[in-house]
Amino acid sequence: MAAVDGGTWMEHLSAQECWSLLTAATIGRVAVLVDSAPEIYPVNHVVDGESVVFRTNAGNKLHAVDRTPSVCFEVDGYDAETRGGWSVLVKGKAVELSSAAELQADTELPRRFWGSGDKSHWIRIVPYEITGRRIVAARKQES
Amino acid sequence: MAAVDGGTWMEHLSAQECWSLLTAATIGRVAVLVDSAPEIYPVNHVVDGESVVFRTNAGNKLHAVDRTPSVCFEVDGYDAETRGGWSVLVKGKAVELSSAAELQADTELPRRFWGSGDKSHWIRIVPYEITGRRIVAARKQES
Repeated sequence: MAAVDGGTWMEHLSAQECWSLLTAATIGRVAVLVDSAPEIYPVNHVVDGESVVFRTNAGNKLHAVDRTPSVCFEVDGYDAETRGGWSVLVKGKAVELSSAAELQADTELPRRFWGSGDKSHWIRIVPYEITGRRIVAARKQES
Repeated sequence: MAAVDGGTWMEHLSAQECWSLLTAATIGRVAVLVDSAPEIYPVNHVVDGESVVFRTNAGNKLHAVDRTPSVCFEVDGYDAETRGGWSVLVKGKAVELSSAAELQADTELPRRFWGSGDKSHWIRIVPYEITGRRIVAARKQES
């Protein structure tokens, strides 16, 4: 764990910790390119093997990943009391699944509130990089 | 409020609601372009007039917004019990401030955990579009 400044420490997370946090997170955010500018959409996701899968409809997100499959996916969390936070960033290639039968995971999992409605398309993000970090306020270290 | 499916309703938020949610949020996420692919970074932000301001160091985020100033900024929240969620998306142009003196808001506000360390640069996102939506599970409507 490295000091960021006198009151804060930053820790890089292992790949295993990153996957654990990705698996436990209820919502994540996917960033895609629309007209050469990034857009962020919250999604309910599921970790399927070593990939992240989410549902979408035939709208902007699907068009975007068809055109520019390089996407990223993020989950984060924070604790207001300890002033600590963590985040995991997955950079990868988005691939549409031909059917939910390609999934190893329980396909019902991602069908939560953001996944309601006509979300008939499944997108798998195949990672080429996964990084995570945790920021901890020093007063937590001292306790 | 429009039905998404039999169990879910989706509501578009007014600009005023969007700004209220942006102001109240502790953390947000900025998406920038790095090597033609989007990346998401969590940041502590502050609403300053009708813009969003965050701090950064002289690293990737700053280089990215110098090269491609079209960015987006997102905040969201959810209630696991009601299976409801909301999100606000700001699309805009990133402009580096020459000094914190340009801010109308309390400059100490964004210096929370993600803003610790050498974050000597201030970036203002001047919005050209702000949209928000809220997803509500039907059972909440019925109660």
